[in-house]
Amino acid sequence: MSLQELTTKIQPLDEAAMQAARVRQDDLTKPRGSLGQLEDLSIKIAGITGEEKPVIQHKVVTAMAGDHGVVAEGVSAFPSEVTPQMVMNFVFGGAAINVLAKHVGARVTIVDMGVASEIDHPEVINKKIALGTGNIAQGPAMSREQAIQAIEAGAQVVKAELDKGLDILATGDMGIGNTTPSAAIAAAITGRSPAEIVGRGTGVDDAGLQRKTAAVVNALRTNQPDPQDGLDVLAKVGGFEIGGLAGAILAAAAHRKPVVIDGFISTAAAMIAVSMAPQVRDYLIAAHRSQELGHQIMLEWLGLEPLLDLQMRLGEGTGAVLAMSLVEAACKILCEMATFSEAGVSDKE
Amino acid sequence: MSLQELTTKIQPLDEAAMQAARVRQDDLTKPRGSLGQLEDLSIKIAGITGEEKPVIQHKVVTAMAGDHGVVAEGVSAFPSEVTPQMVMNFVFGGAAINVLAKHVGARVTIVDMGVASEIDHPEVINKKIALGTGNIAQGPAMSREQAIQAIEAGAQVVKAELDKGLDILATGDMGIGNTTPSAAIAAAITGRSPAEIVGRGTGVDDAGLQRKTAAVVNALRTNQPDPQDGLDVLAKVGGFEIGGLAGAILAAAAHRKPVVIDGFISTAAAMIAVSMAPQVRDYLIAAHRSQELGHQIMLEWLGLEPLLDLQMRLGEGTGAVLAMSLVEAACKILCEMATFSEAGVSDKE
Repeated sequence: MSLQELTTKIQPLDEAAMQAARVRQDDLTKPRGSLGQLEDLSIKIAGITGEEKPVIQHKVVTAMAGDHGVVAEGVSAFPSEVTPQMVMNFVFGGAAINVLAKHVGARVTIVDMGVASEIDHPEVINKKIALGTGNIAQGPAMSREQAIQAIEAGAQVVKAELDKGLDILATGDMGIGNTTPSAAIAAAITGRSPAEIVGRGTGVDDAGLQRKTAAVVNALRTNQPDPQDGLDVLAKVGGFEIGGLAGAILAAAAHRKPVVIDGFISTAAAMIAVSMAPQVRDYLIAAHRSQELGHQIMLEWLGLEPLLDLQMRLGEGTGAVLAMSLVEAACKILCEMATFSEAGVSDKE
Repeated sequence: MSLQELTTKIQPLDEAAMQAARVRQDDLTKPRGSLGQLEDLSIKIAGITGEEKPVIQHKVVTAMAGDHGVVAEGVSAFPSEVTPQMVMNFVFGGAAINVLAKHVGARVTIVDMGVASEIDHPEVINKKIALGTGNIAQGPAMSREQAIQAIEAGAQVVKAELDKGLDILATGDMGIGNTTPSAAIAAAITGRSPAEIVGRGTGVDDAGLQRKTAAVVNALRTNQPDPQDGLDVLAKVGGFEIGGLAGAILAAAAHRKPVVIDGFISTAAAMIAVSMAPQVRDYLIAAHRSQELGHQIMLEWLGLEPLLDLQMRLGEGTGAVLAMSLVEAACKILCEMATFSEAGVSDKE
């Protein structure tokens, strides 16, 4: 799908399916409302999919990787060489995302959106736009054309997964330095100050945090991204994996599939997607509240309440796959529980 | 195990196993601490089990059922006949606990601790102490001997499950009216006023809430339970399924197995267990923050921070099985992730 199609094909939620799901929830053998957010989730998934009894079977987490020129500013606790090393760790199944995806029964799709070295492995989908972004503290991350390419490439990844079977998408990321462009995106779009948003990422010390905040301040001043234009924000202060994730989110929504958003980086990608197509917001489920400083501000801008709050801050899609299992559980409640009459249980007096 | 053995055989956590698990967590391919509560959980399970790499495979939720004489005070939105109806719903797999236990791969053990009618089904473990408790608003729930019987019966259930394979226990309950004795237990042990603790249970209206609060006030005044004596509190204002759960918790801890505590009723049972054997506290994991009013006060008394907050208030063990899956995930992280050296990933600069 072209960018034009991605941003215009997203439908409103199916109100009739939601109403039918709501009626069914109220007839299941439990006090009404007693499963709280699980009930709300199941109704939302009915609206997204258009199915009164939505089945979540094929679960996919897409882990998109890219490198960031801004690492030159000393914004990360780890060196850029860790990005390709961790991509190979994903391939060999040793990373947290592998363990947790396996735990919940999800497929992991690994995508090179712009790692700064060549990765040649059959299990890594090659969508490389360039060998890392420009240093946003000194100029744009990428051209507007590259931003479009990144979004369309992310959408292609989802399209291929849909062909294999995909009922729900979780977003994940890998990219040393990528909390810095994510913070820049959040500051640009929300208008909040970098100091309120920039956090310690993988664990920078106080001096690193100062450098990181300064890098975001410089990125905004140098590039002047237009907060009304998500594509401009992505091009000027974003990243290739962030663009890929924005495209993946748009493509999933265009195909009426729910998307579970992971932490700080994925939420920045969701903000880009929502800036370009506001109706995508209804398709998003916030997985968890990240420990990264500005995440709460970003969730509030998106109007999303997260499912989990486990003080996680790893990324990769780790929070998203855990939350995806809760979404699956919510749909199973709706589909598999007995009603009062089926079970011969007396309803409320 | 006798009550005496149950309360004296619980060991302190294994500090050496916890230290080894902590060292391993810090060597896994992720920024240190970035998996938040999952890391802490895995270390706690190492301490409970005495294993540096604890494996959670056999997961059991025990759903214990009983009836309550206090229902005569008009404290519940549902009639007592729903207790045996729901027990049969558990047997036939139509209840929320069945759906969620299947989702996480847990066995459900259904126990009749004191339902007010005869239940004769091979899948229901018969540990019936009596046909429902006395009305606590007017006298004791049960005799001290019955309280001991209930605890020892709950322990026997766990012992039988251990023989079949049990790595982690989740507690669940079914019993129309059982939020009332649970609130009475919480008020008795914490000394807080019933008005701070009594909630709407399955959904009583304002008048029902007033009757329920009055019933708890009367239960405490009439019975004068001794807050220093958990067995006395159980006997005077408790319930048979609550006693069974307290025994199950004590037995699991005595065998170095972690216990995931569900919501309001299970937490009341945990308070009885901790009152009788304070060292059991280290073996407990709070599944979720229930919507039921006083649950937070009870969690604070236990010193536990819950894993989930999904506005649930169903009971049955529904929150506990979801949380059990997070505990399993935490242990898999510890056991299955690659270390920096194994994966050839550069550690922090």
